[in-house]
Amino acid sequence: MRTNYAVGVDVGGTRIAVGLVERKGRIVKDAKKLTPKTGPFAVVDTIIDLIEEVSAGVHDSELAGIGIGIPGQIDFLRQSIEFCTNLPLAGVDVRSLVMSRSKREVTIDNDGNLAALGESRYGAAKGARDFVMLTVGTGVGGGLFLNGEMYRGSRGMGGEVGHIVVELDGRMCPCGGKGHLEAYLGRPALAEKGREAAANFRGREILAAAGGDMDHITAEAVLIAAQRGDEVARGILLDAGVVLGRALVGLVNIFNPKLIVIGGGIGESADFMVERAAEVMRGEALAGRRDVTVAQAVLGNDAGILGAAAMSFDEHDAREGMH
Amino acid sequence: MRTNYAVGVDVGGTRIAVGLVERKGRIVKDAKKLTPKTGPFAVVDTIIDLIEEVSAGVHDSELAGIGIGIPGQIDFLRQSIEFCTNLPLAGVDVRSLVMSRSKREVTIDNDGNLAALGESRYGAAKGARDFVMLTVGTGVGGGLFLNGEMYRGSRGMGGEVGHIVVELDGRMCPCGGKGHLEAYLGRPALAEKGREAAANFRGREILAAAGGDMDHITAEAVLIAAQRGDEVARGILLDAGVVLGRALVGLVNIFNPKLIVIGGGIGESADFMVERAAEVMRGEALAGRRDVTVAQAVLGNDAGILGAAAMSFDEHDAREGMH
Repeated sequence: MRTNYAVGVDVGGTRIAVGLVERKGRIVKDAKKLTPKTGPFAVVDTIIDLIEEVSAGVHDSELAGIGIGIPGQIDFLRQSIEFCTNLPLAGVDVRSLVMSRSKREVTIDNDGNLAALGESRYGAAKGARDFVMLTVGTGVGGGLFLNGEMYRGSRGMGGEVGHIVVELDGRMCPCGGKGHLEAYLGRPALAEKGREAAANFRGREILAAAGGDMDHITAEAVLIAAQRGDEVARGILLDAGVVLGRALVGLVNIFNPKLIVIGGGIGESADFMVERAAEVMRGEALAGRRDVTVAQAVLGNDAGILGAAAMSFDEHDAREGMH
Repeated sequence: MRTNYAVGVDVGGTRIAVGLVERKGRIVKDAKKLTPKTGPFAVVDTIIDLIEEVSAGVHDSELAGIGIGIPGQIDFLRQSIEFCTNLPLAGVDVRSLVMSRSKREVTIDNDGNLAALGESRYGAAKGARDFVMLTVGTGVGGGLFLNGEMYRGSRGMGGEVGHIVVELDGRMCPCGGKGHLEAYLGRPALAEKGREAAANFRGREILAAAGGDMDHITAEAVLIAAQRGDEVARGILLDAGVVLGRALVGLVNIFNPKLIVIGGGIGESADFMVERAAEVMRGEALAGRRDVTVAQAVLGNDAGILGAAAMSFDEHDAREGMH
């Protein structure tokens, strides 16, 4: 039967957000808590509490299931968490733990894939048959939506577009690789550029945006200063845009997409950066492929909940043979 | 009805090769001629002559059609040649010209895609549901075989894995882009490294492999010297292998494939380079994705003919509703 709701869970390093989502993408009830720092079981307990809170009063037959997005390397086929940098969840069978206590069907995937799925169902890529999603936040991730569905690769671990090499013998990436896009574009890289600038008078507006405290210069301080019109901060974002643009060149030449969606906390707010990236891509991609819309994601903080819910609806419908 | 044969046409900058191919991939008759340098119509005339030569005596009802592989940028949906560096075919409607004169169904695609299709049907990727093909020759190209079929993107121009950026502000690529893989890995790049080495005593074996003539140092001279055990030539190929490996890191992180096939004149023969590339990829790709077979293509000079024939069978079967 056709269920009306799914629960979407967005597990972040800082907070866990859970929503009860209608098929059309309206979040009818949501709840969030800080992510506990006392180990994996505390995290799972918090997830369960929040799920119970938002789904109280919903009849079993109305609920498609629970989708959980996790910022880590997920083997989608095995539904296992292989690596997880910011949370102690690697090797923890979150799916089974939540399933056994909630008595609902549970599916997990990584946050980049779910951001793509959410934008495809409810956001900037609605109706698109093919697009590439890039999320720029603390990490750089993404997902591939090809021929009308998520493309996850042989073990469901594909879509890591933040981990393409853009510089031979380049900077170390948090993942251990060398010269990956993430090493040039995530929050830590932007914050470092901000601190470098703020070390002298040139970066005074960035320092001001951080409340005058060098130790509080973050990527967001750079964004704020840029939005206030500071040329130095804009320069940092424009330089990042060139790097992002070079990555887009490769993605456009590989995928020949009509649409690229840039999301994540930085990607959604750094208009300068995204515009510059689109310009570089249009100048340097192989001719015949440059007619690509580069759109910013629109789901904001709800992307994780909505993507996880969309996955849960899909999995439910596949089980019921509705696909 | 089920046809027995297709004609595969491999249009190269130097020669045009045509084969009559059985469904199982046996080339039962082939013919080749040097590529005329006197303009597009001479090229088309040569294609027609060769097709007539190999298909003489084959009854219409036995022939699925004609597939043509062209080393250029092909809009697969429109069946048009958008760009073609080494041949005067851009904007020439090769498909219609050959169709109107041969009275057979004709399909064109770029050589990288057809190399992938050929290996998937008859070669190193037989039975694989998903793989990435990279061809290393004069240019660097490739194709994507995903979910059991070619993935060509919105206008059929995808799969250009030779044109991903591996170096920010890197070397100019023949395509006009900057820092693309092709700028570091194609025949011209290897030949340049060979000439640099041969400019002094260090590169004497490479010079010897070119018959002692600096002007004849090609990528092949480097390959020959390496096969003879020359450390300098091996070093050039190993360095190229590191670059190729870094590109593979990105492709593995994006696609999470089980198989990567390296083809093209250089890719099929430069074992050192491919082995080194596989090593680098296994060391630097995101964990959980490193279990990838890196295989060399096996179809050699027949890849173009076989891939073009495979496409022609596919198109025929799709028309007849046999898919």
